[in-house]
This record gives sequence, C-alpha cells and structure tokens, in this order.
Amino acid sequence: MEGLKAILVICDGMADRPVPALGNRTPLEAANNVNMSTLALRGECGLMDPIAPGIRAGSDTSHLAILGFDPFTTYTGRGPFEAAGIGMDVKQGDVAFRCNFSTVDDNMVILDRRAGRIETGTDQLAATVNGMQIEDVTVYFKESVAHRGALVLRGPGLGADISDVDPHEVGQKIHVAHAIDPNDAASAKTARIVNEFVRRSYEALKDHPVNKAREAEGKMAANIILPRGGGVAPSLGSFEEKYHLKPAAVVETGLIAGIACYLGMDIIEVPGATGGLDSDIAAMGNAIIKALDDHNFVLCNIKGGDIGGHDGDAQAKVTFIENIDRVIGMLMDKIDEQTYIVLTADHATPVAIKDHSGDPVPIAIYGPGVRVDSVQSFDERSVVGGGLLRIRGIDVMNILTNLMNVQEKFGA
Amino acid sequence: MEGLKAILVICDGMADRPVPALGNRTPLEAANNVNMSTLALRGECGLMDPIAPGIRAGSDTSHLAILGFDPFTTYTGRGPFEAAGIGMDVKQGDVAFRCNFSTVDDNMVILDRRAGRIETGTDQLAATVNGMQIEDVTVYFKESVAHRGALVLRGPGLGADISDVDPHEVGQKIHVAHAIDPNDAASAKTARIVNEFVRRSYEALKDHPVNKAREAEGKMAANIILPRGGGVAPSLGSFEEKYHLKPAAVVETGLIAGIACYLGMDIIEVPGATGGLDSDIAAMGNAIIKALDDHNFVLCNIKGGDIGGHDGDAQAKVTFIENIDRVIGMLMDKIDEQTYIVLTADHATPVAIKDHSGDPVPIAIYGPGVRVDSVQSFDERSVVGGGLLRIRGIDVMNILTNLMNVQEKFGA
Repeated sequence: MEGLKAILVICDGMADRPVPALGNRTPLEAANNVNMSTLALRGECGLMDPIAPGIRAGSDTSHLAILGFDPFTTYTGRGPFEAAGIGMDVKQGDVAFRCNFSTVDDNMVILDRRAGRIETGTDQLAATVNGMQIEDVTVYFKESVAHRGALVLRGPGLGADISDVDPHEVGQKIHVAHAIDPNDAASAKTARIVNEFVRRSYEALKDHPVNKAREAEGKMAANIILPRGGGVAPSLGSFEEKYHLKPAAVVETGLIAGIACYLGMDIIEVPGATGGLDSDIAAMGNAIIKALDDHNFVLCNIKGGDIGGHDGDAQAKVTFIENIDRVIGMLMDKIDEQTYIVLTADHATPVAIKDHSGDPVPIAIYGPGVRVDSVQSFDERSVVGGGLLRIRGIDVMNILTNLMNVQEKFGA
Repeated sequence: MEGLKAILVICDGMADRPVPALGNRTPLEAANNVNMSTLALRGECGLMDPIAPGIRAGSDTSHLAILGFDPFTTYTGRGPFEAAGIGMDVKQGDVAFRCNFSTVDDNMVILDRRAGRIETGTDQLAATVNGMQIEDVTVYFKESVAHRGALVLRGPGLGADISDVDPHEVGQKIHVAHAIDPNDAASAKTARIVNEFVRRSYEALKDHPVNKAREAEGKMAANIILPRGGGVAPSLGSFEEKYHLKPAAVVETGLIAGIACYLGMDIIEVPGATGGLDSDIAAMGNAIIKALDDHNFVLCNIKGGDIGGHDGDAQAKVTFIENIDRVIGMLMDKIDEQTYIVLTADHATPVAIKDHSGDPVPIAIYGPGVRVDSVQSFDERSVVGGGLLRIRGIDVMNILTNLMNVQEKFGA
C-alpha cells in the first residue's frame, strides 16, 4: 500500500527479570540483539505496562489492551477468541468455550483428559454434536488441532461465570457446572446448557464409528467433550473501522489468531510458523513484508520467548531473542522510510517464575517523526531513560495512529 | 512464615520540598540516610503519587490507596477508621464519626472543646450514652484517648455529608447539623440523629457523677459530645482474602491502626511507640521482625517525620529521618533473602507548608528479582532516574504481589 504503514511486533513473554545465571542480566540484556538496539537507537523507547503496573497479564488480555480494547470491560474469558481463531462465527453475546475431547468410563470418571491425544476423526465427531438445540440455545461445536475444539452457545440470556466441568485430573468424576454466583441467573442457564451438552456429547460419541475403530485399535475413545474457559463474546467492532487502517496478522497461536480474526484482520498463514522454539520466524518476517503490499498495519506475535520463560530456560530464551533479532534486522532492511516498527512484548515471562509476571516490558517505536531519544539498547533497563517514559498497553494504538496521522482530532 | 514476605514501611509525611535553611535540600537529601540509600542502591526506585499527581492526600486516603483501595470510591470520611481503630465493630453502611468530649454552658456555648483535656472517667461517661436508640437508628459510642471518642450510627438510609456541629472555637454556640445538599435525604436523616445525639449527650452527662466530681475539683465538665469527620463505612473486604497474604500492622496512630483493623490485619502493639518525635521506633523495627514469624506482610507506619513537617521544623525532620534510617538498617540486617522491603511515604508534609502537600514521594523496592537500577540515594530527586519511573499508590500492592507471586493472572 501507499502511505504510512506500521508493523507491530509483539514478542510473547520476552521481558524478564535479572537472572543470576546470566550475571544478573535479563535475557534481553544478555542477548546479542544488535538490530533491536539499532531500532531503539533510532527510535523512541520506554517501559510499557501491558494492563497496569504490576498486573499479571495473559496474552489475550494484553493483546486486547495493546490493540486498544480495555480488557477490564471487554474480557470475560478466552473462549470467544479460541472459537474465532478456528474460524467459528462468534457473535456478540454468544458464550464460547475452549474444549477437550476426553475419555470417560460409564460412571463419568476421567480416563484421559485428551482422549489419547486423538489426531484424526474429530471432524466427524464434531459433526454429530454441532448444531444441536438445548432449550432455546443453539449449540455450535468445531474441532481444532488434536484433542481440542471450541463450543459456541447462541441464545438469549446467557452468562459465562460458571464452575468447571473438567476435574483436571484422571480418576476423578466430571463435575456438574453451576453458576459461581447463585444469584446469577444468566450463568445458571449457561451451566444448565453446558451440563446437558456434556451429557449429550457422551450419548452421541460413545458408540460413534470413529470411537469404535479407536477402541478396536486399543486407543482411548474420544467419547465426551469438556468445555472450559468460557467467556461472553464482547462487542469490539472492526479494527479497520476503529483505526482507518487495513490490518493483517502474522501470528502463531490460535488464541492470538482468534483475537485478530475477531477484530476482522486478515490472517496470513505462514508455513513453518509453529509457535515453538523451532518456528520459522524468518518466514514470518517475509510474510510481514509481503502483507505490507496490500495492508498498512501488520500485527505480528512471535511465541518462542514465552516458551523459554515457561520452561525456565534462560539460554533458550537468549537464543530465541537472537533469532527474533535477525528478523528485526531483516524488517528494518526491507521496509521503506514510510513504515513504522513498534517492538515490544505482551508481558514478561521470567525464567525464575516460569509463568507470566506483571513486570513492565520494553517498547521502542521506530519511524518517521518520532522523537528519537538517548536510549541505545533494547532491554528492560536501558529503555528507562527513553522518551516514552512509562506508558500502558492501551496507549499504544493511540500513539501509533497519531504518528500515522489517521486519528481524528478530539475537539477543535 | 516460610516463603516470600514483605515489609511495607510508610514514613508519614517524610517527603518534602527543597528547604532554604538546608541549602535548598529536602530533609531526606540533607539527612545522613545511608541505610535507605543502600536499600535504594540494591533496589528499584521511582516516584510515587499517593493518589494522583498533585493531589494532597490525607494519611487515611493515601494508606487506602497504597493498600490497593481507590479512595475516590471507598472513602467518605475518617470516622469509620477512627472507630475501627479503637476496637468498635463497624459494619458496611454504618455512619461513623470521631468525637470530642467538650464543655458547654447552659446555652450550648463552648467553654472548652476538649473538656479540660479530661484523662479519666470517660469510660463511665461513654457507658451512659452507648447503645441508645434514636428513631430506627442504634447509636454506639466509645471513648478513646483523653477527650476523644467515636460514634457509630447503625440503621437504614444514613448518609454522611453533613455540616459540623463543632464550631471549633470557644465562645461560640454549637451548630445545628444539616445535610450539605438539601436534596440528600440520607444525610438529612443523619444530621437529625446527630443533633438529637448531641442534645441527649448533654442531658445524660451534665449531672453525671464523674462531672460533678470534676466540677468539685474546679475542672471542666465533659458534659457534651461533639461528633465530626463523619463517613459511611465502606465495604473493603479482607486484605488477606484480597491478596492471599497474612498481614500484620505495626503502626502508631489510631487512624492508621483503624484502617489496618478495618482490613482485618493483626495489630501489633508496641510499647513506647508514641507517634511522637520521641517514639521508640527501634522497638517497632523489632516488632516487625518478630511479626514476620507468623505473617508474610507487615505494614509499618512511622509518624515522626510528619510531625516535623507540621511543626515547620526542618532540623527535627532531618533528625527523625536519621532515626528511621537506623531502623531501616536494622531491618535489612535481620531479614532473610526472601523478604521484600518497600520504603516510601504516604505524602509530603513540607516544612514550608506545615501541612500535607500533593508532591510525589520517593519509593524503593528491595528484594529478590527486582530490576536493580542506577539510583544510589533515597530522596525525592535521586529516585527520578529509577526503574519504576512514576507510579501511583494504587499500583504498589499490584507490583508487590506480582513480585511475591501471589497474584492471579488476568487472562490466559
């Protein structure tokens, strides 16, 4: 496209805390990330609280915030984004869940939460439960990768604040869902529908030919579907309409693809982008550059740093950051002078914690007109001296659309 | 206790502005506070706005904010915390006041606002007015130190936005309370109850044997009770449930003890902790260390710096800061490596103003995993280069519970 364009590179879980094994440096400080630092040197830097200082963000709530949607008012659970991410039609007010195909015995006791990690045939299983009617609610179900799937409930007066049916442990009987708040009639209705759906899924699946065949081969039957992580689908509208930008997404995980899809972004599939430490992120970089031909905003989420953090593997994180750094270098080489790059993380995943933390993350904005500051390295502590000082995720799109001159003036 | 622990040291009114008599240094800058500066050197620092930039905080609103409760939505007056601080049972929706025993003549003209600073017998006086019924409201009254006490009104439809009955001046007749907003029926009801309580307190106390004895000795009779500072008791819930931390409080003033008590913290009494410039704050330090045996969060408020500020006495403030500094050194010596210290102030009390101001205050966080920054001194201007940049009081517990890894993740 002509005109100003932007690439928003969100490195999942890349930020960290000082790591003793790295000489009390963070992985970003320890990594040879010369291209990121060049971007910082030529750009404007600061700290970003994805949600607010100290708040431990999920990847979903953080991406919502960075894309300009307040998660405190829009987010009730990941279900709607998971469902959208596998191409289901999710409408405002629907209640959606992520699901597992599982294996239970006749007494509803869990034998395997992942149905022997079933790989094939779930499309046929899904077809038998998709579209059923329970009370005045229509039930949509679609399979995803392996034992996974998503459930969408569409009907009047549904809530999402229900207890879990999945006991999360083999040998336990599945739970009966109930509303967390006994006075919450909408969630009580949803709990009733979910319990009935679970019961009917067992009836529909237990003697299904796919499962008969699996049992004949000594495999676990995928004989029940267990929903979890329910959320009410929020009204977010279209990213394109909100920002007057034509957006694409080059992302790795279903959850982030779901958010992008939910916001109407074009999802660019990249072969080899696995979401793992072995992901072909150079191919993602090429896909970003190509996407700029007919989009002026590209969201990119690169997952690997988060995995290093969750694994508590500082060296893997350093190595992956250096891989990302090469992609940043390539992007800087290939973009024209009308293109912004925003480089940040969606949260910290400290190797010492092996989970997300609420520490602020570094952010750098590179492109025409930014107030270049004195920061010379891209890491958690070097950016403290930067011109952005300390911002929040929710500020990012306003800062970017201001630079891109597509934001309407507030007032006269 | 095992695991991560934290000490939150709030030095009342410690922050200040540059003082000409100190060579345009603040008391913190002028003081020899080497231990605080060691903590800053090994920790992460920044500026904190207790409420928001420029807002002049009270100690109560600031402590509420720092403990994670938005004072704009939870605070209507100090009465509920004063009442809780002397052990009264305050329930959500009660309206509570701090009170003085005062002396009036037959025409309700104030002879002494503090009833000759009465020291004894107020328990007997309180008993005669405690538990009375006015309309459908039950009235609880309890004596506190010297001429002070607290009043709790419990009944339906009470507000707290009423004018003062205390004229705050000898020789003036006591005022009739009324609702500030004539359309505020709830506060109008409270004003009616308060006026009746004041009238009845005079009837009950004027001929009370305690007062007859005082008059016989030529002392002022404590013949009326004047409420002020009324507030509706907010629903704050339990600190322990909110943060999954077991809290204790080592504090000096009734107001802060009241807030701690209201939040369900264990109050640790420290003999010699007077709240004055002569307070045995070393004993408070020892009590903090002891409290960590069976708590993993200790709130500490040290009052003296605020007194130096209110007195306009820069040298007294410098000297008291040096006293606090010795306590900080002792804490750092005695804690284990799993314990955080957060050092800050609840507001500035500039000696030039002799009252609270809305200037930001310095904050330092010391403990495992913090991103140690380049700040080497603990004072208002040295912390500006620190990694926290500028935060608000309401952020502190989120930042701390993130470090202590007791915060639930928001999202997936």
